[in-house]
Amino acid sequence: MKAITWNQGKVRFIDQSKLPLKLEYIETENPREIVDAIRKLRIRGAPSIGVAGALAIALVAYHSKVENINNLAKEITNWIDEIKKVRPTARNLFYALNRLENIVSKHLSSDMNKFRSEIINEALNIMEEECKYSKEASEIASQLIENGDAVLTHCNTGPLATVDYGTALGAIMEAWRQGKRFKVIITETRPLLQGSRITAFELKAERIPFTLITDNMVGFAIQKRMINKVIVGADRILHTGHVINKIGTYTLAVLAHEHGIPFYVVAPTTTIDVSSNIESIIIENRESSEVTSIMGHQIAPPDVDVWNPAFDITPPRLVSMIITEKGLIKPPFKRNIKRIIGCSKNPHL
Amino acid sequence: MKAITWNQGKVRFIDQSKLPLKLEYIETENPREIVDAIRKLRIRGAPSIGVAGALAIALVAYHSKVENINNLAKEITNWIDEIKKVRPTARNLFYALNRLENIVSKHLSSDMNKFRSEIINEALNIMEEECKYSKEASEIASQLIENGDAVLTHCNTGPLATVDYGTALGAIMEAWRQGKRFKVIITETRPLLQGSRITAFELKAERIPFTLITDNMVGFAIQKRMINKVIVGADRILHTGHVINKIGTYTLAVLAHEHGIPFYVVAPTTTIDVSSNIESIIIENRESSEVTSIMGHQIAPPDVDVWNPAFDITPPRLVSMIITEKGLIKPPFKRNIKRIIGCSKNPHL
Repeated sequence: MKAITWNQGKVRFIDQSKLPLKLEYIETENPREIVDAIRKLRIRGAPSIGVAGALAIALVAYHSKVENINNLAKEITNWIDEIKKVRPTARNLFYALNRLENIVSKHLSSDMNKFRSEIINEALNIMEEECKYSKEASEIASQLIENGDAVLTHCNTGPLATVDYGTALGAIMEAWRQGKRFKVIITETRPLLQGSRITAFELKAERIPFTLITDNMVGFAIQKRMINKVIVGADRILHTGHVINKIGTYTLAVLAHEHGIPFYVVAPTTTIDVSSNIESIIIENRESSEVTSIMGHQIAPPDVDVWNPAFDITPPRLVSMIITEKGLIKPPFKRNIKRIIGCSKNPHL
Repeated sequence: MKAITWNQGKVRFIDQSKLPLKLEYIETENPREIVDAIRKLRIRGAPSIGVAGALAIALVAYHSKVENINNLAKEITNWIDEIKKVRPTARNLFYALNRLENIVSKHLSSDMNKFRSEIINEALNIMEEECKYSKEASEIASQLIENGDAVLTHCNTGPLATVDYGTALGAIMEAWRQGKRFKVIITETRPLLQGSRITAFELKAERIPFTLITDNMVGFAIQKRMINKVIVGADRILHTGHVINKIGTYTLAVLAHEHGIPFYVVAPTTTIDVSSNIESIIIENRESSEVTSIMGHQIAPPDVDVWNPAFDITPPRLVSMIITEKGLIKPPFKRNIKRIIGCSKNPHL
């Protein structure tokens, strides 16, 4: 079950906002529908967002009616600029769109058909690579899970978040496939409940037993030694080792540190941002209705003031290890991230 | 707006489970309805539960058809035994019922009318005292809130939780009434949303501005210096200073400690348990539907395994101060709680 697929000018994706009540596919030739899906979290998870952004551009290239390369390049650039504004935090979206920008400027003097196919091929390459990197990162991270562990994960980092395989949840699934037996505890992850809706759905599909808790139960669970490892994904990792991930991640890292249990972050290198500083990171604030209502049902008085950041920032001192498709990265991150990115075969990082 | 009132053999209370969508009063002569209301959190908050338990016994004494004191005493004792099992963690319920047990055994040789009225009077005394203690504790605690503060509170500890006035939220309201101006941040408090439903409702009624966040946003808010004080209530405080309170409290205490901001606990001395040890504390586990659905709406796949403790335990080393109607209690709590309870005029502690 892939989150997103491409077939001859059509993109098909699972509407993640409907899970677990409905498993609904949307098929479209319209890039606008992909952009809306990213905005409304029908498609979510940093690698899936990156792939969806790339495929939206592929749809533009495939279906555009404009008659010369310059106009098509302009059309594509406008779309890229628009999509970059939809969700500002996750790295993979910018990574994917930057790659497509490079293709645009590189092939401006090609013929129209080649120009179109170069754009589409690059988008498909990005999709294939994101899947491959997630698979490899989750396989490497699965080595950190042992028989008898009790592993906590947050939000959703499974196949749906990464097109295929998954990162942190991918590692859990891979370790389980290897025959290891351990406990899995998942947080519901308010406000949008990616844990209780999507992670629960994916673990059930894989027949992996798990226990669902609310976000505020993590501290007590760790205090009671019901959890001995925390493993999460990331939306953006800075060269300093700062991890930007789903809101609540920082609290998990503080609790893990307080109790001396490891805190692992699993992500493809396409999530690593080598150029930004912590000060320049934009944390997306989302609308208050996500907090005052749940799946359309009002739960708080109307018109209350809400703070709704979608992500938070975990400082490197709380991170035990970052696991990418290139291998395990241990502290000091500032040195070791540079080292692993430097030896990456991916020329786009 | 009192959470619970007594009027000539009738108890009237606000159904807190319907807030904020409906403000609904229930009036009853039937102790069974009070017991159900405690079980289903129509009445909640440690002091309010204690008062409700006492008034349920007053209803038994008022309406019983049995013809002699021994039978009435037996009937009352059976009810007391049953009510003690409904919610095992909050101290005030046991405090109230123990007082009524004492009255039963003390007046076994009175006449029937006196026996009835002694029981009813004791229940009404408990109600009056709980209100008085909450008022005094919240007034004292209000001194800790200063102009320009940004105060976080958790769950609901306002008038509805304590019949009148409130504890932690009472202190916030009292400081606001004194003309102090500061920010108030409230957690929604999953699973039953006492923050977004009840605290939000009470703050709006008092026209105190506030910001609502989900439980997993607290760490990031403190990291961003949006909060400089944490103030919570308690369901039970041990003589060692261990604070048993709504699930999520321990995590708040860890975060406050990590960032060097004070963590205050406001409670009447009727919440203090001088005889139990930490090992003997029963943390109530509630049903999984509280986590898998919200206000009747399914949010997770059916039949998932859930852990749903209603409370957690905060160790004394994370508590900056405990504020009761007898004054501020500073560490070391083991010595200072004993000292303040020793000088209490309440003979029932």
